[in-house]
Amino acid sequence: MSQKVMFRHCDPAGIVFFPKYFEMINDCVEGFFAEVLLLPFEVLLKTGGVPTVSISTDFKAPSFHGDELGLALTPMKLGNSSMQLKICGSCDGQLRFTSQSTLVFVDNIGRPTPWPLEIKKVVGEIITSRIGTEHGK
Amino acid sequence: MSQKVMFRHCDPAGIVFFPKYFEMINDCVEGFFAEVLLLPFEVLLKTGGVPTVSISTDFKAPSFHGDELGLALTPMKLGNSSMQLKICGSCDGQLRFTSQSTLVFVDNIGRPTPWPLEIKKVVGEIITSRIGTEHGK
Amino acid sequence: MSQKVMFRHCDPAGIVFFPKYFEMINDCVEGFFAEVLLLPFEVLLKTGGVPTVSISTDFKAPSFHGDELGLALTPMKLGNSSMQLKICGSCDGQLRFTSQSTLVFVDNIGRPTPWPLEIKKVVGEIITSRIGTEHGK
Amino acid sequence: MSQKVMFRHCDPAGIVFFPKYFEMINDCVEGFFAEVLLLPFEVLLKTGGVPTVSISTDFKAPSFHGDELGLALTPMKLGNSSMQLKICGSCDGQLRFTSQSTLVFVDNIGRPTPWPLEIKKVVGEIITSRIGTEHGK
Repeated sequence: MSQKVMFRHCDPAGIVFFPKYFEMINDCVEGFFAEVLLLPFEVLLKTGGVPTVSISTDFKAPSFHGDELGLALTPMKLGNSSMQLKICGSCDGQLRFTSQSTLVFVDNIGRPTPWPLEIKKVVGEIITSRIGTEHGK
Repeated sequence: MSQKVMFRHCDPAGIVFFPKYFEMINDCVEGFFAEVLLLPFEVLLKTGGVPTVSISTDFKAPSFHGDELGLALTPMKLGNSSMQLKICGSCDGQLRFTSQSTLVFVDNIGRPTPWPLEIKKVVGEIITSRIGTEHGK
Repeated sequence: MSQKVMFRHCDPAGIVFFPKYFEMINDCVEGFFAEVLLLPFEVLLKTGGVPTVSISTDFKAPSFHGDELGLALTPMKLGNSSMQLKICGSCDGQLRFTSQSTLVFVDNIGRPTPWPLEIKKVVGEIITSRIGTEHGK
Repeated sequence: MSQKVMFRHCDPAGIVFFPKYFEMINDCVEGFFAEVLLLPFEVLLKTGGVPTVSISTDFKAPSFHGDELGLALTPMKLGNSSMQLKICGSCDGQLRFTSQSTLVFVDNIGRPTPWPLEIKKVVGEIITSRIGTEHGK
């Protein structure tokens, strides 16, 4: 996902206010569900959700107004009803932040629920092909 | 400007929280300055700014999560250091909001300052051609 | 309502980013419903809502990080299912913004609905006493 | 710090949208600097800043619209120019989130800078007295 740093993202120091990165990260996860998993949040929310249960982020370098950020999302691990994601933001080859989060697939009263088979399949293939590629390096 | 209604825009009623429309409007104005006036905010802010001094908005119909909004910006009037804009948001041909705002071009201590000639020229031409088109209807 | 201007409200110019005023205004309306009308939004939302259908705002002077803003809400007019409000923000006696908005009381599928009698009574008394005071000046 | 969960914090699921917690956390840190360290951000920012360089958060239970959250900030460790903080949010005795962050004191071009002596002293005393209390249990 590409995201230009807009005026609304920036703080009095002229750099991205860190809570705004979490909105970008959420947009990125929402895009992944819509475009890769073909389960848009607006559909998913009718029967449940995918709350973020933990997130750990390192801010490596500040991002300035006007920067063109690239956000890259990598699924790292798939549990029965959880998913670990890594999301990195960079600009012109410079890493700006790295974030690891865990989501849980829940039903409409918040109980963890097994992932649909189709999602297991797609995410499983992404993880397997990535590991394969890394081993093949 | 096109803007998908994301999870982060929506309130507990599942529709766009109205202050978020003003962030979209600001993005739209920022895009107009960057792409049409060729004066990106990140450059403009080094020597001044364009604060919004008034804005009046009618919310015609709610926007739902997942909607693809189109925002259309029309410059309405150019003063010596002010500019009136009309910004409309719609989805699938349905008007969602109309907004009229006035911006003022200021220097770095906030004093109103005449628009650069290049901006006067470009905005003047847009206004003139629009009025010409409307008369020719 | 009192609201200190926090870091999160401020833009690269070090002043309140105007969409953030609309979040403050919404907090102020939410406080009015909870504390004066005794109908907190978290209760009201179970059976309907009070969407803002129009809002018109003049920004008179910038607000800086650290300013202690006072927001004053005045109900101006009560319709069958609408309410007009005036909300002013000031700091140290200086007016920062004035805003006029119209809310509509709706049911859970968004249809305008008559105000509950208790709300009509309370708001009616506020409007009447204010007008009485103004006439008596 | 006490923070009522407002409409503006909540997502379509009616619970706090997680990036909003980071705005609450930032408010909490800002309050700690203003009220405990007597170095308000609006003063500190004139000569530098305290960017968050990492933050790790566990969301233990959702927070609902209308909840009265209590945020507790504990300084954990003070480096030459860094500070580790723990911030917990709870409601009615139920933990909602725990967060550990690291801030760095920087000058106006972003270089890490030793904490002022007064801040070292105050934070040092808080950490020492807390550890003393914990040992004395």
